[in-house]
Amino acid sequence: MPKISHKGSAMPESPIRKLVPYAEIAKKKGNKVYHLNIGQPDIKTPQVALDAVRHIDMEVLEYSHSAGFESYRRKLAAHYQEQGIPVNLEDIIITTGGSEALLFAMGSTADAGDEIIIPEPFYANYNGFSTASGVTVVPVISGIETGFALPPISDFEKLITPKTKAILICNPGNPTGYLYSKEEIQQLADLVRKHDIFLIADEVYREFAYDGFEHFSVLNVPGLEQHAIMIDSVSKRYSMCGARIGCIVSKNKEVMSTAMKFAQARLSPPTFAQIASEAALETPKSYFDEVIGEYLERRNTLVSELEKIPGVMVAKPKGAFYCIAKLPVQNADDFAQWLLESFDYNGETVMVAPAAGFYSTPGAGLDEVRIAYVLKQEDLILSVEILGKALEVYPGKK
Amino acid sequence: MPKISHKGSAMPESPIRKLVPYAEIAKKKGNKVYHLNIGQPDIKTPQVALDAVRHIDMEVLEYSHSAGFESYRRKLAAHYQEQGIPVNLEDIIITTGGSEALLFAMGSTADAGDEIIIPEPFYANYNGFSTASGVTVVPVISGIETGFALPPISDFEKLITPKTKAILICNPGNPTGYLYSKEEIQQLADLVRKHDIFLIADEVYREFAYDGFEHFSVLNVPGLEQHAIMIDSVSKRYSMCGARIGCIVSKNKEVMSTAMKFAQARLSPPTFAQIASEAALETPKSYFDEVIGEYLERRNTLVSELEKIPGVMVAKPKGAFYCIAKLPVQNADDFAQWLLESFDYNGETVMVAPAAGFYSTPGAGLDEVRIAYVLKQEDLILSVEILGKALEVYPGKK
Ligand SMILES: Cc1ncc(COP(=O)(O)O)c(C=O)c1O
Ligand SMILES: Cc1ncc(COP(=O)(O)O)c(C=O)c1O
Repeated sequence: MPKISHKGSAMPESPIRKLVPYAEIAKKKGNKVYHLNIGQPDIKTPQVALDAVRHIDMEVLEYSHSAGFESYRRKLAAHYQEQGIPVNLEDIIITTGGSEALLFAMGSTADAGDEIIIPEPFYANYNGFSTASGVTVVPVISGIETGFALPPISDFEKLITPKTKAILICNPGNPTGYLYSKEEIQQLADLVRKHDIFLIADEVYREFAYDGFEHFSVLNVPGLEQHAIMIDSVSKRYSMCGARIGCIVSKNKEVMSTAMKFAQARLSPPTFAQIASEAALETPKSYFDEVIGEYLERRNTLVSELEKIPGVMVAKPKGAFYCIAKLPVQNADDFAQWLLESFDYNGETVMVAPAAGFYSTPGAGLDEVRIAYVLKQEDLILSVEILGKALEVYPGKK
Repeated sequence: MPKISHKGSAMPESPIRKLVPYAEIAKKKGNKVYHLNIGQPDIKTPQVALDAVRHIDMEVLEYSHSAGFESYRRKLAAHYQEQGIPVNLEDIIITTGGSEALLFAMGSTADAGDEIIIPEPFYANYNGFSTASGVTVVPVISGIETGFALPPISDFEKLITPKTKAILICNPGNPTGYLYSKEEIQQLADLVRKHDIFLIADEVYREFAYDGFEHFSVLNVPGLEQHAIMIDSVSKRYSMCGARIGCIVSKNKEVMSTAMKFAQARLSPPTFAQIASEAALETPKSYFDEVIGEYLERRNTLVSELEKIPGVMVAKPKGAFYCIAKLPVQNADDFAQWLLESFDYNGETVMVAPAAGFYSTPGAGLDEVRIAYVLKQEDLILSVEILGKALEVYPGKK
């Protein structure tokens, strides 16, 4: 039998997927499972986006331009400009989700054997994209004690080698919910300029900032134009995950012409979804006020309920819709499995994402879980209650 | 300024893209340009597919399963079974176009530095996918003299090294229009079994076979289950290029579980487009009869018109909708540019794809062009007339 590639063997499995068979067991037992583990919002997609697709009027579903429809790129540039981000349509390539934009960014900046430094815990699929690209992820640890703030710049400097091609951050963070301050972004900007490497910022949650904090984009740092690469997506902003539309944005012409060659090879991003995404730009402000208000209330509920459980520590998220909670358990992997396999409270249980999968340092985050607040309030309250009851009886406590 | 990756510099530009500025020149002069250079069919997308999207009834546009909707995979498996291809839904992963399926296939079978043997001329984006994957393409030449038949197996054997991980064929071929016979596929099957490597078959044009020839899939070879990987797409079959839906199909469980890890990292294929593609499976047979009838007539017209031009040699295509023509010119690149920049016949000219971009052996195919018959008959006839007039006066003739 022919051998698959080493890279293929090394491709990580999603840290959540491992739990799926246990969720099946819970369901087979007749237990209801609250999914705190996923990043799929329950929020409605803007009507204007769905309607655009319902009203398509075409005879041939053609490829679009490899960089995406010009009309869409133009409106998207105007949208960024309104937010004070000075980009034009030629600085934008529409991609198949933020996922593809990340692949293009890694492929354009790093070769097999090169290194990209990423503060951990980080979005687990960065591992998949880097393995697929042959690039090595070098983690720099951020801890729950500091609420996952930017690690000291000296920690980054210790890790920079001639193979380091970029620093990749997620802002606001999945799984941390941390929102980097303007000062933190400035520090990173100085660092990447000093070492002449790229700063890739995954800003797919850029709209979701709470408590009056403002999101500060890497594209807003004067003088960082040649180093900054921004990744964006419609997935979370408009609850349009299934569209598979994102973009890579940079003022660096060489980066853009290189990313464009990757884009040309795969021909075009999806046409229907671009039509929906272009229309989504017309979403009324009231939609976001409502959605962000909803997430904020959920966050408040989630955090205050979690903090009532003895031994639980939470890093209060300032953005996105995830939070990391430290639990009084020896191993959150085992706990998550036990919740599904062996526990229920009145026929209900919860599924959480063990946080170890978001760290690449072995042994880090073993007692942490990521909780996504993509469920409605009542369900969140119930879920945390179930978690509390479970912790009362869980045999593997610390 | 930070450096982009070596891989990024090495990413090939599309061989057609180079001509785009010259097409602009032609249009600025007011000349009409007939596009014989593209693979975007003018054929109507089946109504049933477009209607499915017009009638979507959803509130949240969610991610699908990373392997695609189960309902779609089930129906697709049934569709293949009807064609005598014994696959089940677990042998299929839905991808973002055949393009992504090719990336997954290369990534699952070969590492940076490994080699994949491909008969040339071949679909130019194989170069892009292999560069992105760090894989080396090793071409084995097939010539217009044999109509681009399979090169002798001994030619393949000479090129097989310990680094060879797969042979990749396109059947029927873009740009050749060649349809491999059952015997040719059998020979390749014996070869890959002997050397225990994979046989990847890009069958995105599988429906388009003419003159009573039947397409023979690599999935139809008994005993090749562990070696055969098939790439498919809705792009050409239903003239749904903008959907971005394809699939990778194999009975080899290790290949599928590896491809699945690549699929999980990028979350899901596009949802709207999957809905359209699932509905497209209900396309009435009459649609294909008509479409294939239309392509056949176009092919006949194209070939017979081309053969009337002195010095032109054509490899009569048995499938797909491309053909390679050898022209009496020194350099088809220069000729294609000249057609746009310096020639018109009654205010009209044509854009062809120089074939050198489809070869990876330097100097091969320099006097050949690829012509796609995706234009209606009258336009094809006119286009070939223009080509003939151009050749009468072209200064760079052989
Ligand atoms: C941090 C982060 N980046 C990127 C993505 C990719 O999203 P998409 O490909 O749907 O745009 C996600 C999705 O969950 C994410 O959480
Ligand atoms: C031979 C071949 N393979 C694959 C593709 C990729 O098509 P898609 O990604 O649209 O499925 C094409 C498109 O032209 C092609 O000609």
